[in-house]
Amino acid sequence: MKIALDAMGGDNGPEVTVKGAVESLNELEDIEIYLVGDTDRIEKELKDKSFDSSRISIKHASEVVEMDEATTSAVRKKRNSSIRIAVDTVKSGEADAVLSAGHTGVAMATAFIVFGKAKGVDRPAIATTMPTLNEPFVLLDAGANVDCKPINLLQFAFMGNAYYKTLFNLQSPKIGLLSIGEEDSKGNELTKETFRLLNESGLNFTGNIEGKDIFGGTAHVVVCDGFIGNTVLKVSEGLAEMILSMLKREISGLTSGKIGYFFLKPAFKNFKTKTDYAEYGGAPLLGINGNCIICHGRSSSKAIKNALKVSNRLAKNRINNIISESLLKN
Amino acid sequence: MKIALDAMGGDNGPEVTVKGAVESLNELEDIEIYLVGDTDRIEKELKDKSFDSSRISIKHASEVVEMDEATTSAVRKKRNSSIRIAVDTVKSGEADAVLSAGHTGVAMATAFIVFGKAKGVDRPAIATTMPTLNEPFVLLDAGANVDCKPINLLQFAFMGNAYYKTLFNLQSPKIGLLSIGEEDSKGNELTKETFRLLNESGLNFTGNIEGKDIFGGTAHVVVCDGFIGNTVLKVSEGLAEMILSMLKREISGLTSGKIGYFFLKPAFKNFKTKTDYAEYGGAPLLGINGNCIICHGRSSSKAIKNALKVSNRLAKNRINNIISESLLKN
Repeated sequence: MKIALDAMGGDNGPEVTVKGAVESLNELEDIEIYLVGDTDRIEKELKDKSFDSSRISIKHASEVVEMDEATTSAVRKKRNSSIRIAVDTVKSGEADAVLSAGHTGVAMATAFIVFGKAKGVDRPAIATTMPTLNEPFVLLDAGANVDCKPINLLQFAFMGNAYYKTLFNLQSPKIGLLSIGEEDSKGNELTKETFRLLNESGLNFTGNIEGKDIFGGTAHVVVCDGFIGNTVLKVSEGLAEMILSMLKREISGLTSGKIGYFFLKPAFKNFKTKTDYAEYGGAPLLGINGNCIICHGRSSSKAIKNALKVSNRLAKNRINNIISESLLKN
Repeated sequence: MKIALDAMGGDNGPEVTVKGAVESLNELEDIEIYLVGDTDRIEKELKDKSFDSSRISIKHASEVVEMDEATTSAVRKKRNSSIRIAVDTVKSGEADAVLSAGHTGVAMATAFIVFGKAKGVDRPAIATTMPTLNEPFVLLDAGANVDCKPINLLQFAFMGNAYYKTLFNLQSPKIGLLSIGEEDSKGNELTKETFRLLNESGLNFTGNIEGKDIFGGTAHVVVCDGFIGNTVLKVSEGLAEMILSMLKREISGLTSGKIGYFFLKPAFKNFKTKTDYAEYGGAPLLGINGNCIICHGRSSSKAIKNALKVSNRLAKNRINNIISESLLKN
């Protein structure tokens, strides 16, 4: 598969994206990468690296979307930005998927406008993978749609189902509806009606799931509207940071802190690896006529590499075709 | 102040509630407690304890609401339950506040029905106190109202403002609106319109606050609808448990785990104290004509004692009168 990588995207730009791209070549035999962005800067990063030059090529883009730009004007005015040209490269058929760690809003909006919605889909959704004590779960919508109707959530369930199957090779993922009480009757207007639709969907629907249980691994796919989903994501990020900061503060306040930390360091390190978003390789915008995967702005080269793997897999499996088929059949 | 304590409420019933009540007498000079529930069981718990008997008395209740009962039928049928009699004790003027660690839904619904709404309040709300790296913050609504209008969220802000002032002696708490983006224009239909109302409210409104920032201490009061609020609460609970379980698993998997843990034990203990919900003393249902404070079912005697302190403080300050006045003035 050919991936168009927005080389300028992310807090550290080409330094990190180019490194991730080169590293991915060793692990993925069938991948080819377009590095989209400022030729000079990309060449500078490529200079010292050894790689198969038949599998990496540069596509010049004269503009960059900055992280703090307003979405609408950036989408409308910056037609020569790296993200726009990367998306266009997929649209023209030259590449099979686009990957960006840049401005999330602009990347999503550009992909949505250029690719259009997949057949049978009313609202595309962002699917985010999160760790649990056991297998990871996929949460969607993670922020594309702030106000939703029950039919949208039903479609998110089908999208999440197809995505989880593709990503983790699981035949019938358990689908949970994020609500505030496990009983059928609990929730708000939106979730109560969605519950009814999911019950009749033919999916492996396991009912309402409460916030405290999503990390327990009871559902593989957790469905909610984008406002809640984005809030859950951000709260989790903030809380995890707070807990680790507090523990750090307590440990550094102890006279025995340094020695204790010395003995436990491998445990903290393992924990960090297991909860590292970089392991999960980005979040796709599902339900559009093309593959678009978004990474965290803070992505490391490892995160980029893992996201390239996911992009490759989604493109190869034609995830959005699977989604359309499952929705049109329903 | 006189507090009617639902002695049967909570996972451990009288064993814990009676202990918490007795302990609170030493710390609060002006408190008197009605222990409401099965006389025999309460007397059994009181037998071995020394306390000022002029400040604790028993009010018999022949029924108990079990944790898994359906709210509506329990409220309608169990008129002699400990929670109902405790609420009635406040309604009749014998006590100033009711406290329960029992069935949250039944306690809330009973208080709502028996007390009625406070003047100027459309929807009462549950206010939960949560820890941050610095000062705690209050989140409301934490679950009383699953579908809200902007006017409800505006009123929650006034309630949270009055509550934070009363609880932490802060003249002008910073009020944040939970949303998915800091800019004024970000959010869903509900938050966008609420933003406008809060801007004109005269409160110390600091704008939208994202989920990742609530634990950073940027707002003292975080306003949202009860579906989101309850979800945030539950996700936080679940994630904190998962993080600690994962760390524990990693530590116990190390040969040097035991020795390292030995040196860091005080740090983990301090961390636990600082994040212990028991420190924060329960969550009130604000905006009703009476004081009702709910504790976690898993409450320890210390949590009950701290909740008795909060109940005493809210009753003394006539929190719901303050709320009515601020809403009627607005």
